[in-house]
Amino acid sequence: MGLIVQKYGGTSVGSVQKIQAVADRVVRFRSEGHQVLVVLSAMSGETNRLLSMGREIGGETVSRREMDVLAASGEQVSIALLSMALQQRGLGARSFLANQISIRTDGAHGRARIEKIETEGIRQYLEDGIVPVVAGFQGVNEAGDITTLGRGGSDTSAVALAAALEADECQICTDVDGVYTTDPRIVESARRLSQITFEEMLELASLGSKVLHPRSVEFAGRYQVPLRVMSTFVEGPGTLITMESEEMEQPLVSGIAHTADEAKITVAGVPDRPGSASKILGPVADENIEVDMIVQNIGVDGLTDFTFTVKRQDYDQAKSLLVGIAQELEAGEVVGDKEIAKVSIVGVGMRSHAGVATTMFDCLAAENINIQMISTSEIKISVVIAERYLELAVRSLHNAFQLQVPAEAE
Amino acid sequence: MGLIVQKYGGTSVGSVQKIQAVADRVVRFRSEGHQVLVVLSAMSGETNRLLSMGREIGGETVSRREMDVLAASGEQVSIALLSMALQQRGLGARSFLANQISIRTDGAHGRARIEKIETEGIRQYLEDGIVPVVAGFQGVNEAGDITTLGRGGSDTSAVALAAALEADECQICTDVDGVYTTDPRIVESARRLSQITFEEMLELASLGSKVLHPRSVEFAGRYQVPLRVMSTFVEGPGTLITMESEEMEQPLVSGIAHTADEAKITVAGVPDRPGSASKILGPVADENIEVDMIVQNIGVDGLTDFTFTVKRQDYDQAKSLLVGIAQELEAGEVVGDKEIAKVSIVGVGMRSHAGVATTMFDCLAAENINIQMISTSEIKISVVIAERYLELAVRSLHNAFQLQVPAEAE
Repeated sequence: MGLIVQKYGGTSVGSVQKIQAVADRVVRFRSEGHQVLVVLSAMSGETNRLLSMGREIGGETVSRREMDVLAASGEQVSIALLSMALQQRGLGARSFLANQISIRTDGAHGRARIEKIETEGIRQYLEDGIVPVVAGFQGVNEAGDITTLGRGGSDTSAVALAAALEADECQICTDVDGVYTTDPRIVESARRLSQITFEEMLELASLGSKVLHPRSVEFAGRYQVPLRVMSTFVEGPGTLITMESEEMEQPLVSGIAHTADEAKITVAGVPDRPGSASKILGPVADENIEVDMIVQNIGVDGLTDFTFTVKRQDYDQAKSLLVGIAQELEAGEVVGDKEIAKVSIVGVGMRSHAGVATTMFDCLAAENINIQMISTSEIKISVVIAERYLELAVRSLHNAFQLQVPAEAE
Repeated sequence: MGLIVQKYGGTSVGSVQKIQAVADRVVRFRSEGHQVLVVLSAMSGETNRLLSMGREIGGETVSRREMDVLAASGEQVSIALLSMALQQRGLGARSFLANQISIRTDGAHGRARIEKIETEGIRQYLEDGIVPVVAGFQGVNEAGDITTLGRGGSDTSAVALAAALEADECQICTDVDGVYTTDPRIVESARRLSQITFEEMLELASLGSKVLHPRSVEFAGRYQVPLRVMSTFVEGPGTLITMESEEMEQPLVSGIAHTADEAKITVAGVPDRPGSASKILGPVADENIEVDMIVQNIGVDGLTDFTFTVKRQDYDQAKSLLVGIAQELEAGEVVGDKEIAKVSIVGVGMRSHAGVATTMFDCLAAENINIQMISTSEIKISVVIAERYLELAVRSLHNAFQLQVPAEAE
């Protein structure tokens, strides 16, 4: 018995039939005695359909204010439909747009940040047994204009509402039944984690696990909102994303993430003096090319090799940019490789265990997989390898860290 | 130079290309020095698509509040797209939802009535040269909930905004280029009227001319808003709908309307005593069957025949209802005819000219067309005839009243 915020994504409400299924699910939670607040995305495909009409008309210079008005209409449809479906099931339900709650944001159209949520009205409805069905992804700025929170914004809406209402749990209901130790399509013995820490989830999400939007994980961590990823259509406990607690026996490694859509670029023989790095990356950033890993070793001969990875689609543009920059820097050749993949092991437990890296490197060496780049954070080790070894590497590492076996604490 | 409110219907904004054409048209009016405020419907087909999803989920008992949330999303899309298209053309433009203006209505979801419009903010934008692009069809009630005005509501939104802003003209831009003396598909010489009175327009609209929603015409008449029906896609002055003025030489008859989708039902031999009519029509109304013409003659033998028309689709249901009622009333047979049509002549001028009816009946007699029912109002005479004579009747009457020739005042 408690207050649960449930967020359903676009695929969960992608048709009238699926909305009916979501309604059944909400009824089940209500009948267990919980207060439930629902946050919805637009029906799948809808936001893209709307935005593509907008771009067709508005081109590149399109007004962000109007784009937000356009995009936010998608959630208006899904909240009305679910409210009706709940009412058909005899449940009190009521749709809420961002301005009706209100979910106040700053004025940054298309990527607004939530500043404040009025909870008084909503709380009264919850206490009266009504299920508020709230439009995710959208907010309203000081002037009363509609704003949107950017892609994945509905997750953020749900977490923010859960935080503001001090909900007992925020459930992100989606088409997977939880967070796995790695991609089950690659490793058959991949195991659903019953829990994972916020930090681990953050690393896994931004590494491409794609279950949750990184911003919502960050938000949940900051406001200590218990977050659970679970399936809309299959019953089960999903994966609880928790604070790290001292009592919890931490597994060394919780999961293995991978991305296969990157490419690496190396500027060889860069004179090793202050400012080189920014001279290389500045023009890349100016073109809005996203840079992921960056590796540089201090050269012993006054020269250094500077390597970074970009999205594969940006490779050609980035490389041709750098040819000019290399000349200015009096550096050597610019070389690259599009056939690479990144594999990362993530785990809060590795903080205190230096041996994790050794296990990882040994494992890859035993499979004769050459490591091209290494980058580490407190709870993550990422390596770049040749793309053709990706599946082998993930499988071997999954086995080496015995991820198919539940940790004792689970 | 003045303030013009332009309303574009669903077919006028039915695609990205058509929205571009509407934008070009608005730019043209702005460049002539007018202030322009635009009111839009949803893209054609969109409202039906949304409502059918709603009915699929909500069935007959669907929440009207949520239906309004659902339906109103359609206009949100079109106003955002047109605002972008105007901005692309270098014009200042800004979309407004009902709650942003605000267009305050009563709480009757699905058929709300506008109570009050805040004009201060909008007026400032107009003075700054901005084109406000307002969502038609929708309002907001006292509680901040979205309401809708019912079918044809965008026309009403436009007229209400024009009235509140004391606009110089309210232009209803649609896919016809004006109001005609009769249906041009039947009478080749049908002529576009350069002007018509509000009362005539009201009779023509409710008789099925379908150019304007009757409620908006009524509204325009009450608030004395000059209303013009014109084409979105073809240049031309359209038809101005005016107050009746004494100086205006009124043509006897302005137009001929017809409907072919009705059926008539007669309860014969009804005992001529008080309450019979309501006993017949009460149960019909209870089934939400719309009744159009009603004719009853006082019987000389204490019995009377009671005849009325309904939509053809309601004929079978209405007739079987009446069989039972006739027995209760100790009346005679219930007979009916689905093969009927209604033809009406409309004109403010006929008030003072008793001869109009004679001309009409003579004309029909000359063609050997039998008149089955007659009903009249101050500015209209309607007759029911066999459906197979419909086109002949319209053509003959158009000729008899010389409608192909402009009246002198035009």
